[in-house]
Amino acid sequence: MLYKYSELTQSVTHIKWSSDLQSVPLPAIIAAGMSRIGKRTGLTSKELFLEAFTEALDRAPNLDRKKIGAVYVGSASETYEHQIMYGSLMTQAAGLLPVGSSRVEGCAAAGALALRSGIMDVLSGLHDTVLVVGVEKMTDRRTEEVTDSLMAASDFTFEQVNGFTFPSLYAMMAVSHMHKYGSTEEDMAAVAVKNHANGSKNPKAHFQRAIGIEDVMSSRIIAWPVKLYDASPISDGAAVAIITKPELARRFTDSPVYLRGTGHASDTLGLYHREDPSWPEAISLACREAYQMAKIDASRVDLAEVHDAFTINEILINEAAGFAERGKGHTLLREGVTEIGGKVAVNTSGGLKARGHPLGATGLAQIYEIYLQLIGEAGSRQVPDVEFALAVNEGGSDAVVASHVLSR
Amino acid sequence: MLYKYSELTQSVTHIKWSSDLQSVPLPAIIAAGMSRIGKRTGLTSKELFLEAFTEALDRAPNLDRKKIGAVYVGSASETYEHQIMYGSLMTQAAGLLPVGSSRVEGCAAAGALALRSGIMDVLSGLHDTVLVVGVEKMTDRRTEEVTDSLMAASDFTFEQVNGFTFPSLYAMMAVSHMHKYGSTEEDMAAVAVKNHANGSKNPKAHFQRAIGIEDVMSSRIIAWPVKLYDASPISDGAAVAIITKPELARRFTDSPVYLRGTGHASDTLGLYHREDPSWPEAISLACREAYQMAKIDASRVDLAEVHDAFTINEILINEAAGFAERGKGHTLLREGVTEIGGKVAVNTSGGLKARGHPLGATGLAQIYEIYLQLIGEAGSRQVPDVEFALAVNEGGSDAVVASHVLSR
Repeated sequence: MLYKYSELTQSVTHIKWSSDLQSVPLPAIIAAGMSRIGKRTGLTSKELFLEAFTEALDRAPNLDRKKIGAVYVGSASETYEHQIMYGSLMTQAAGLLPVGSSRVEGCAAAGALALRSGIMDVLSGLHDTVLVVGVEKMTDRRTEEVTDSLMAASDFTFEQVNGFTFPSLYAMMAVSHMHKYGSTEEDMAAVAVKNHANGSKNPKAHFQRAIGIEDVMSSRIIAWPVKLYDASPISDGAAVAIITKPELARRFTDSPVYLRGTGHASDTLGLYHREDPSWPEAISLACREAYQMAKIDASRVDLAEVHDAFTINEILINEAAGFAERGKGHTLLREGVTEIGGKVAVNTSGGLKARGHPLGATGLAQIYEIYLQLIGEAGSRQVPDVEFALAVNEGGSDAVVASHVLSR
Repeated sequence: MLYKYSELTQSVTHIKWSSDLQSVPLPAIIAAGMSRIGKRTGLTSKELFLEAFTEALDRAPNLDRKKIGAVYVGSASETYEHQIMYGSLMTQAAGLLPVGSSRVEGCAAAGALALRSGIMDVLSGLHDTVLVVGVEKMTDRRTEEVTDSLMAASDFTFEQVNGFTFPSLYAMMAVSHMHKYGSTEEDMAAVAVKNHANGSKNPKAHFQRAIGIEDVMSSRIIAWPVKLYDASPISDGAAVAIITKPELARRFTDSPVYLRGTGHASDTLGLYHREDPSWPEAISLACREAYQMAKIDASRVDLAEVHDAFTINEILINEAAGFAERGKGHTLLREGVTEIGGKVAVNTSGGLKARGHPLGATGLAQIYEIYLQLIGEAGSRQVPDVEFALAVNEGGSDAVVASHVLSR
């Protein structure tokens, strides 16, 4: 059952909001928390979750946890801890039984999809206040086991069985971009350098060490042009957010952060099905939907946390999110546009590259960074005067995407 | 971090609906479809899904599939096909790209949790019409691999590492019930006999053969008192439902079926954490929530599809759903109350025991049977004059539960 890409997508209009939606404001984040990210030997996902949840409770001292009506847990893979049912496990760990819970998965997009489930729950009127969680404990397995598990997020039929790995899939995106638009290995290296510089200012980041272009260029080639330092690490971590109806938010905190737009789109899982592997269509659509809901365009975004699982992906997202024209994503790195102090600061946390990439936690780790920036608690990496911030979280080869716009 | 059960649950009020919810009716099912359930050698989950989806489209000829705004896929485990990202895969297979998609998991409760995600989506106003999917392809793996995967839905820390399997966990529930209430092995066998009789009338069931009490009693002991014929089979299958705002339903079909209540609750994952292993508290809470939303009580239910993963669980659900007093669930089998023609027909499809139990598909297979019964297309197992029907779907050891009430 092989389709042409045009048959798969062109006939379907992406945005189909109900007419009811326009009148309803999205929920507010009353508290967020994140564990330290890294190799957290000896801790289970439950303990990482509690590290994040405890911080969130501390940030909302007026919140009685009994107000929480449901728990949505984003987690990518059952293989790392031989465990599914994270909904029940985390709900018990949080002392929230017997409220309803479920796990949401879109591989590395699981965190943002859990947030989106929470948004739907609150918008639906089922509950006023819910807890959304992202968590992954990856480092207790051997690297080859982790690689095997990761590949379950690619197409089995043609990609897995032919020996592809994610470095090789993103390498094809990179080669395509280099060929069409003249981007270089040094442009990709510049993403790693920028994000390591940001990560060096983040006390919870997996890597807190600045690096230079030469460090990246001389690192081991994994799948040309992708080198070791173009890849995000295998990390453990958890992040949470507690969200509520916007009109209730100030009962619980003086510093709510408001969700303004949510976007969600899918693409073919197999890269081989796409007409242009250098264009992440689902990212473009999810960002456009989130912008439209927030009634802004890309020029209004001051800060973005985006899915740099490999450095090339940050360049592609620069284009798909509308920060650069198509084919010009790498030029923002050359011009410093996405540094802290530039027009749009991208991955101030260090991104997946330096903050780390615990799969299911990443989407909510992005939200946590935006939360800190918007309430002015981002320390030495604080960006002044952030009005709108964007989070872009994807799973597979940019195959399932959820994007969110936030502001004070 | 061991809690007493009372600390885990007693302080939290389960139902926390927002005041907004009362005024909003739940979505309608405009079409449902289900693959044949069984050992479907040579087919992937994508092909099983398409078998179900095609039937649903045939049942709603006035529905342009381009109206579908999102896809929620319930699937329990990535290990059977070494595949996650079923959201993207099924959305592509259905020709629905680029709409947003995600996978929802609560082990065997995944199907009903996907339905609940769809309900939240429509209630939230994000989309008018969404597709919910349950799918699992289990039989291509060796039995010991399947057993290993299944156990990921139990508590790792104490249950998995000590060698428990689900037959032994349910055996403990059974022994507890037998000890406290005087239920017998023959009572459990009667569940299998009833459900096989029903399954013999279901042309899509995994087992379409009636059996007698002696067949069950003489079958191999797995974990006393659970015998081979007390256990549901390992099955392949898929089921789908297309749901929309209730006021739009008659544009697409003359036979809509309405969701009237949805309930969702969690319990400890580990059975060892519970005060009374013979009482599935989360099932009780989820059913009570669904009844309350539907403004009915248990006495109004004419038909129920419930989660008889093991025969003892149907007996426990008889009590937790309110069909029998606590401790009397088995007496309904003795009196024929839950047969077709009895006061409340339970598992007319054959249940998990005979229709089959493709984990993530089961919750929507239950909805499919109720859909057929409510539109009068259940053939030789049709129950006349069904007003209200209940679906009870759980994952783990009754640890995550979603219950739904439906009617015409």
